[in-house]
Amino acid sequence: MLYLVGLGLADETDITVKGLEVVRRAERVYLEAYTSILLVDKAKLVSPQSLSGLDLALTVLTVSQESFYGREVIIADRELVESGSDDILQGAQEKDVAFLVVGDPFGATTHTDLVLRARELSIPVRSIANASILNAIGATGLQLYNFGQTVSMVFFTDTWRPSSFYDRIKENASIGLHTLVLVDIKVKEQSYEDMARGRKVYQPPRYMTVAQCASQMLEIEEERKEGVYASDSLAIGAARVGSTEQKLACGTLEELAQADLGPPLHSLVLLGKRAHDLERDYIRAFAINPDTFDASWKMYYNS
Amino acid sequence: MLYLVGLGLADETDITVKGLEVVRRAERVYLEAYTSILLVDKAKLVSPQSLSGLDLALTVLTVSQESFYGREVIIADRELVESGSDDILQGAQEKDVAFLVVGDPFGATTHTDLVLRARELSIPVRSIANASILNAIGATGLQLYNFGQTVSMVFFTDTWRPSSFYDRIKENASIGLHTLVLVDIKVKEQSYEDMARGRKVYQPPRYMTVAQCASQMLEIEEERKEGVYASDSLAIGAARVGSTEQKLACGTLEELAQADLGPPLHSLVLLGKRAHDLERDYIRAFAINPDTFDASWKMYYNS
Repeated sequence: MLYLVGLGLADETDITVKGLEVVRRAERVYLEAYTSILLVDKAKLVSPQSLSGLDLALTVLTVSQESFYGREVIIADRELVESGSDDILQGAQEKDVAFLVVGDPFGATTHTDLVLRARELSIPVRSIANASILNAIGATGLQLYNFGQTVSMVFFTDTWRPSSFYDRIKENASIGLHTLVLVDIKVKEQSYEDMARGRKVYQPPRYMTVAQCASQMLEIEEERKEGVYASDSLAIGAARVGSTEQKLACGTLEELAQADLGPPLHSLVLLGKRAHDLERDYIRAFAINPDTFDASWKMYYNS
Repeated sequence: MLYLVGLGLADETDITVKGLEVVRRAERVYLEAYTSILLVDKAKLVSPQSLSGLDLALTVLTVSQESFYGREVIIADRELVESGSDDILQGAQEKDVAFLVVGDPFGATTHTDLVLRARELSIPVRSIANASILNAIGATGLQLYNFGQTVSMVFFTDTWRPSSFYDRIKENASIGLHTLVLVDIKVKEQSYEDMARGRKVYQPPRYMTVAQCASQMLEIEEERKEGVYASDSLAIGAARVGSTEQKLACGTLEELAQADLGPPLHSLVLLGKRAHDLERDYIRAFAINPDTFDASWKMYYNS
């Protein structure tokens, strides 16, 4: 059996009791180690220096995780998952293999591939669900029913400023829905130079902030000028959702572009115009500036 | 501190390790007992007769739960949560109160009210996230990024056939997105007669099936004729998501209107036209009839 086990969002105790039982009795335990912050390079995470900027509560991984699980955990990087899936699945017709994923197992496409491959090999698959940012963002107080499609925001470069997120937000906005914007994480990235020279040297990890995300959104509105949102549109910046260090800040995009929400992971929700008063009552408590909040609310929302 | 603790979807072992620690050390433990199947009437659930039709794996509640948690659990029905929230919150300024919710704490509006009331009473609040049907539906293989707003389907009566879900699906469909349809649960409902006579007698619980949901959808399309979907539009029926008895069936709405997916809870996802080939590869394995699946796919999707 292949078990896909969701780990939840914050620390090693966010695994479910059911998931922990699977991990403890599995023949081999893999940890998907490239789509989330919790899963940065093993050596980096256990080094105190690199943790200084991070929140310890966010670090599911490695030492604490292995001791909590009482199991050795094999780190599965992108290469192993995408090209070496048969190694992961080896013997899983008879024995149990656990594949751990931060959040919920079905948050990312890659795991769909792994299941498809398992099916080809006649390996039964079971998944153990857990919280993902796509539902945990409900902690903002915005109603999950009123979210449209989720979009992703990548780090812009001088030559690459993809704005397809803007078209997606435009679609959501046209029907009054909130948009969750997931922000970029760069883990184990190589510089062009190192890549060209075939050196397996990696850049330090980078995590986009709410401020960077809001700035890039405004930059694209400035460029496209389709009025999908404005500098005084309301959004909520959410940091470290699900951890004890969770922080929420509600403000205009302009305010959020200046806000400091601390260590990663960050996400942002742009409010849809159908936002209702119960949502307002909840989120106003996180307002960076209640006056600008009230002014924008009055101008754009629940009209 | 008020702790809102998500229980996940299937059984008592879906609680997180962190959530279980909170439950075990809290002063009082409440269980929200009216928005989910797991939380039907305590006496009913422990009676073997009433379980015959249900799946034991789905019954988080009561006996097994109390013994698993090692704690007495106070059932919080709608009345207590909506009118007696101060009883729940009593003393939570100093002591810990755990409020357990099937799925994730922020799936339903009511819990937002409880948090707002706690704030008024200067009670700190923390939530322990877990899987909700809104993300666990990813187990269908459909990409969560491509879902629009979630809709609810109620049991139609002779005089009440609300079709606002149709307008919402139309909006999602207009931008090619999938729609998750959550189906009605009637727990602790009174008949008009009993209500009029002030008798606290409750009807047996009713859980809408995928077949009923698909039929009602077709009925409204027949009435409105706006072409939002057709009898050969593809959808996925999902039953008991997250449990070992999970069952998925993919077919046309017409096929699903005849399908029997067994005991509750059921949900349905109507495919959006932007569905892509990786999703097709995954869901085709659940097709009721691969030929009609292929025909509909070719006609409507990923075009």
